[in-house]
Amino acid sequence: MEYILKVSCDDEKGLILRISEIVVKNGLNYLSTNEFVDHENHRFYMRAVLDGELEVKGFVNTLLAFLPRSAQVFCEESRRKNIVVMATKENHCLGDILIRENSGDLNANVLAVVANHEDLREFASKFDVPFICVPSDGVGREEHEKMVLNELKKFNFDYLILAKYMRILSSDFVLNYEEKIINIHHSFLPAFIGANPYKQAYERGVKIIGATAHFVTECLDEGPIITQDVVLVNHEMDWQDMRRAGRNIEKIVLTRALDLVFDERVFVYKNKTVIF
Amino acid sequence: MEYILKVSCDDEKGLILRISEIVVKNGLNYLSTNEFVDHENHRFYMRAVLDGELEVKGFVNTLLAFLPRSAQVFCEESRRKNIVVMATKENHCLGDILIRENSGDLNANVLAVVANHEDLREFASKFDVPFICVPSDGVGREEHEKMVLNELKKFNFDYLILAKYMRILSSDFVLNYEEKIINIHHSFLPAFIGANPYKQAYERGVKIIGATAHFVTECLDEGPIITQDVVLVNHEMDWQDMRRAGRNIEKIVLTRALDLVFDERVFVYKNKTVIF
Amino acid sequence: MEYILKVSCDDEKGLILRISEIVVKNGLNYLSTNEFVDHENHRFYMRAVLDGELEVKGFVNTLLAFLPRSAQVFCEESRRKNIVVMATKENHCLGDILIRENSGDLNANVLAVVANHEDLREFASKFDVPFICVPSDGVGREEHEKMVLNELKKFNFDYLILAKYMRILSSDFVLNYEEKIINIHHSFLPAFIGANPYKQAYERGVKIIGATAHFVTECLDEGPIITQDVVLVNHEMDWQDMRRAGRNIEKIVLTRALDLVFDERVFVYKNKTVIF
Amino acid sequence: MEYILKVSCDDEKGLILRISEIVVKNGLNYLSTNEFVDHENHRFYMRAVLDGELEVKGFVNTLLAFLPRSAQVFCEESRRKNIVVMATKENHCLGDILIRENSGDLNANVLAVVANHEDLREFASKFDVPFICVPSDGVGREEHEKMVLNELKKFNFDYLILAKYMRILSSDFVLNYEEKIINIHHSFLPAFIGANPYKQAYERGVKIIGATAHFVTECLDEGPIITQDVVLVNHEMDWQDMRRAGRNIEKIVLTRALDLVFDERVFVYKNKTVIF
Repeated sequence: MEYILKVSCDDEKGLILRISEIVVKNGLNYLSTNEFVDHENHRFYMRAVLDGELEVKGFVNTLLAFLPRSAQVFCEESRRKNIVVMATKENHCLGDILIRENSGDLNANVLAVVANHEDLREFASKFDVPFICVPSDGVGREEHEKMVLNELKKFNFDYLILAKYMRILSSDFVLNYEEKIINIHHSFLPAFIGANPYKQAYERGVKIIGATAHFVTECLDEGPIITQDVVLVNHEMDWQDMRRAGRNIEKIVLTRALDLVFDERVFVYKNKTVIF
Repeated sequence: MEYILKVSCDDEKGLILRISEIVVKNGLNYLSTNEFVDHENHRFYMRAVLDGELEVKGFVNTLLAFLPRSAQVFCEESRRKNIVVMATKENHCLGDILIRENSGDLNANVLAVVANHEDLREFASKFDVPFICVPSDGVGREEHEKMVLNELKKFNFDYLILAKYMRILSSDFVLNYEEKIINIHHSFLPAFIGANPYKQAYERGVKIIGATAHFVTECLDEGPIITQDVVLVNHEMDWQDMRRAGRNIEKIVLTRALDLVFDERVFVYKNKTVIF
Repeated sequence: MEYILKVSCDDEKGLILRISEIVVKNGLNYLSTNEFVDHENHRFYMRAVLDGELEVKGFVNTLLAFLPRSAQVFCEESRRKNIVVMATKENHCLGDILIRENSGDLNANVLAVVANHEDLREFASKFDVPFICVPSDGVGREEHEKMVLNELKKFNFDYLILAKYMRILSSDFVLNYEEKIINIHHSFLPAFIGANPYKQAYERGVKIIGATAHFVTECLDEGPIITQDVVLVNHEMDWQDMRRAGRNIEKIVLTRALDLVFDERVFVYKNKTVIF
Repeated sequence: MEYILKVSCDDEKGLILRISEIVVKNGLNYLSTNEFVDHENHRFYMRAVLDGELEVKGFVNTLLAFLPRSAQVFCEESRRKNIVVMATKENHCLGDILIRENSGDLNANVLAVVANHEDLREFASKFDVPFICVPSDGVGREEHEKMVLNELKKFNFDYLILAKYMRILSSDFVLNYEEKIINIHHSFLPAFIGANPYKQAYERGVKIIGATAHFVTECLDEGPIITQDVVLVNHEMDWQDMRRAGRNIEKIVLTRALDLVFDERVFVYKNKTVIF
């Protein structure tokens, strides 16, 4: 069996030795391991892939007993994640997720698509994934989010993926799923925060546009960044051309972020990510 | 002989035909040509490399007579530009310029280096280029700029290159050299405007940093962008590491921008650039 | 009405003037235009987007009458292209094409998918596109290609897209569709020509892998390149990881190439492309 | 004091624990650490930065005693490396090295420049670095290399950097400095092996060119790759333009490779590199 172990805690001398002793005593073998110490925040991070047979709960408790009180320990058998995807009208990010699920390239199962418009119903149905529309037109944000939450509660998902979901989520909503909501933002953050970044980029006359995948926190567009990429643009392109070029990079960036998160390679701490 | 012709004017029917007639009547041959119409602003741009023998002034006047009154016409025999480089303490952008001048890769002569600190005097002297220090410590900005202007007036330069010149220039200073000052900004504009972008980038936890070469206008960091590029960073890097990684991209981006400008490939219009 | 005009011919003095005169006499206006002279081969290339009302055939004949005998002239009203996609088992490139067609981002209609295995039938059926399987197992190449050609003849397509079609096409087959077949090759050509480039890349220990979209000619993997891109890899990745990373870049590169070709921005000459 | 520890050996259970025990017993603290297991070759790699006071020789011997017989252990106090740079006529890579040494960005001292032409003597003298010319014209390769070796023996260097040294080195020469010679190759290996890659790239009509930094082994252009990067090219560029564009990427790629090697982040094994 293959297990993924993630440990983060305040840095101390001898952490690697202590963890290694427990790993070896449990008859486990390291298939791979990474460590990083954030010297600014005196924080230790470790991710290991372990081979063996494990009673996970006991193993985690032993680790917690021997590690600093600040320790966070995650250990789980390697497995496909379960996700719900939220979208609005555009199909390129959702489509990329569904195609990669279909081919087995995505390390996750899509439990449902939740949208605030009907536009993608037919598209989702092609892939036999439940499509739930909670219309947002003419509904207050609070009420709309309540209804969305009601739908989400029906699914036991690991992550909620905002695949071009074009609504801002309230703090209250976000707090339900801390470090569980991943968004693709259609700009190279922190450039062009807010609405229509492609129009902003066109007006500023930039020569490169980008996309950013990040965890969603209470602060809009300011959550921990997972990954980013860019694409060249030029004076011949109007903002619709930039948006079209941007779509290609949006789906690629979201895809890379999902691979990193689903493989448990990402740690979040103080609005930043450590990625192994 | 090889001439570069640049025309921009409000768009009208038949511009290419009219220009071609004048070109052919003057016994010139097109070696290459590019046109672009900015349909948003109804503006026509053309750059051509022409082969033949030309009385430039008369040629330009003929063109102006047959083109709309909004026309700007530039025509010049292909030649190396003359530049003055301004710097402060860092040598990587200045060094790249001097090495490329030395090898003949830079299409320009460096007439002088003007700095506000003494640090680069020895470095500049290696390349036998005049080094003029106008110390900025303990001097008001207005007074300092006056002294810098006095020094600059001694040189007949085409462009003033800010190769990590770490002082903000006033509107008054900039107005002396419209579309003639090129700056390398150490971030992917418009992200991280202002002081210490690498520290800002580190604190935001971005996964890519960049550099931007732009013309300097009255609005700090907001002039027309010439070119940009990026480099990957990660959680292992503190802001000094990012700065070091950034230096490589800064010099490359500045170098590319200078090549484009010195080859007369760049048009500026309404805070944007058209680049052929 | 919007027309696309493409001209290529041996270079001569006055070509732009001659073409402009004909364009203007036909009451057309240039919306955009690009010219390039390949000085090595003394060949002139021009692409223009024209606005007006046109009797295309007469216009082309007039141009041919006034241009060198070597001239090739293409003129057509702007329109969506018709394509047939060939594939084998992988769905990522086919999927990207179908999703972009579905959203309107692709400037083409997919008339059919022709495959040599049944694997993608269900996938293609999601998008209601005819799926034709011509099984290749146990059939000689010549016979198989004959059957494929029979199927292809039922469709009136502009381009044949090899979206991970894992069979080598014979010269005889290719000659039926000169400059009409576009392939995505899963390496940064000319590196790793031939079978399983990802395994070759892994074994060589490269740090970057790529993909290449090219026109298919009689010489395998040696046709005119349309566009290429790369992605970073590292020692942690085995060749299956590289293949997975490569798929993302394959689909992006194919997509970009199709956009360029369908917008009539590509000229082919002597195994190279000129792209405006 | 800061030490860098590098261990590689055949993989076994419990290696991390054993090493950690020795590290802790010696009163050392991990500042950072990375491990990797190459499962194909059953090989374990570890790099650690250690803080403390160390008798290096004894520490290494203890490690060797407790590790498999296949173990290679390197431990050294962090220090600037000493290098000799070999060049021919082009100054861009040499210049980049000298400027970065001058500014303190390069973690190395340049002891000397050894060239086979006089062209760079004046350039090297600007930076007060000894310049030794061993002319290659009219001399057999064996004899020339003998003379070069005689000169090299006068310097106690860690690495020999081929900064556009345009001569092929014989196996005999290379064997003197195993894993100590770093070359910048002006193509995206394994594409365009051999002479004038830019001309080859131009003739093939590629849309991207690149550069590769690699260790030099007996097999020309086939040594372990350290890092690579690419830059876009287009049909407007002849091969001299590509060479000029390539120079920018050559110096950047060499610079990155040197940073990785000088920080002891690179392991070589079976013609590949593991890079932390």
